[in-house]
Amino acid sequence: MPDPDDAVLHLRVRFAETDQMGIAHHAVYPVWMEAGRVEWLRAHGLSYRSIEDSGVSLAVSGLEVRFRRSARFDDAIAVHTRLVEARSRRMRFVYRLLNEDDGGLIATGSSEHVPTDREGRALRLPEAWLRPIAALVERPD
Amino acid sequence: MPDPDDAVLHLRVRFAETDQMGIAHHAVYPVWMEAGRVEWLRAHGLSYRSIEDSGVSLAVSGLEVRFRRSARFDDAIAVHTRLVEARSRRMRFVYRLLNEDDGGLIATGSSEHVPTDREGRALRLPEAWLRPIAALVERPD
Amino acid sequence: MPDPDDAVLHLRVRFAETDQMGIAHHAVYPVWMEAGRVEWLRAHGLSYRSIEDSGVSLAVSGLEVRFRRSARFDDAIAVHTRLVEARSRRMRFVYRLLNEDDGGLIATGSSEHVPTDREGRALRLPEAWLRPIAALVERPD
Amino acid sequence: MPDPDDAVLHLRVRFAETDQMGIAHHAVYPVWMEAGRVEWLRAHGLSYRSIEDSGVSLAVSGLEVRFRRSARFDDAIAVHTRLVEARSRRMRFVYRLLNEDDGGLIATGSSEHVPTDREGRALRLPEAWLRPIAALVERPD
Repeated sequence: MPDPDDAVLHLRVRFAETDQMGIAHHAVYPVWMEAGRVEWLRAHGLSYRSIEDSGVSLAVSGLEVRFRRSARFDDAIAVHTRLVEARSRRMRFVYRLLNEDDGGLIATGSSEHVPTDREGRALRLPEAWLRPIAALVERPD
Repeated sequence: MPDPDDAVLHLRVRFAETDQMGIAHHAVYPVWMEAGRVEWLRAHGLSYRSIEDSGVSLAVSGLEVRFRRSARFDDAIAVHTRLVEARSRRMRFVYRLLNEDDGGLIATGSSEHVPTDREGRALRLPEAWLRPIAALVERPD
Repeated sequence: MPDPDDAVLHLRVRFAETDQMGIAHHAVYPVWMEAGRVEWLRAHGLSYRSIEDSGVSLAVSGLEVRFRRSARFDDAIAVHTRLVEARSRRMRFVYRLLNEDDGGLIATGSSEHVPTDREGRALRLPEAWLRPIAALVERPD
Repeated sequence: MPDPDDAVLHLRVRFAETDQMGIAHHAVYPVWMEAGRVEWLRAHGLSYRSIEDSGVSLAVSGLEVRFRRSARFDDAIAVHTRLVEARSRRMRFVYRLLNEDDGGLIATGSSEHVPTDREGRALRLPEAWLRPIAALVERPD
């Protein structure tokens, strides 16, 4: 069992990610959530690059974000990822984004995924991937 | 009453918007929805630039996207925007993204907004903006 | 000979493309130049999608941008593209970005390309693409 | 004198940064160079956030990138930044991007900057910023 802290992605808000409101643009959050998901897989001994290289993609079928507080340029952000559902045809992750300076909640979110082949056709996630992934499902709060 | 078709944003999927799955990356959809919202305002005689210039922003407080079918490089996409709620402290838009070649549904989505000042503090939307905007609320399907 | 005006890409600066300086972020200009290049090809009866579908990519090997004047949210921008060199192993485009309201010059730029296969290996551009493209070379000013 | 290694930004190629060629899209490199510049300033005891907060921006006036080798999803990249010119009205940084696995050169680049005020008007960089920055100029190779 890896230290759960290893599964946290630490990032800094890039200047390019801000908008003219002076905050991180909302469309950047799904990018951070995706990077958090990749880091979570790595921390659990799974590589999203290997999954892709084997011809399977986890296409995003649904996305939800609740924005609680702004993030600003150069803020240190922690992306906490949890897998809450893993079936052969559907997977769901939830996310909590925290400001690392004061621990304040920036945003929560979730993403749903369907396994697909290289042509984008839905398929059953091969057992070789499903078994180790399903073992990592946590209950949502 | 403007022709509702004027409120539709027409765009082409940019090469930079694709990812290595060969499709438009999911984080681009909120960018298209935002551009659709700006076009919708313009078509109804309202300018988001003017709203911003008056010191009011419509910060995004919530975001949801359901992905139905992939969009590919150079696909022509139509973003249909509707305002479904407009109160002084909360606004909600819904979106339908269609492939212009065959009319197929690419994605649906919604966004929630809170009016804020330049420092990001929530405020009541000034009447001068609220009245014309509230007059444009449509019922969701 | 197509009307050269058809080869001009017209776009509006998206909100997501601004940064906290209140202007379009500089990394967006290469995206606009790329979209201009795709439009230029289309206007000349060539489709970058078809080139890609045939297994050939025009990988970017060099990029240069001079920023003359800021572009702001919702500004209408015209991207003028010209091909100034086309050989079997190297192609070069130059760009002029104008503010459509007053015709002012926003930026100039250039991009260099090498034809590659799907694995990214350099190759000679097939004659079927090179001949029609080479016929479109214009002298730089 | 800080360890020069502290001035190196380490990043991983995000999935969202890839394109349908299966490589990091070329417009992402200026974003990485900017993040490298911010890290370089931090490593030398300077904060770009503080410079911005004082009302001074280092607007990008020129940009150049030479792409040597592709970067792929999840590749570990090191961005080496050097300041090669610092005057009150002009600054120039150069960059080397390396693949951290094999040390291979991914890209080289440069960026030119002019100090501006919040309205985007060019100004002389205040002595309080110029002096510590000018002390860090290195000769290009």
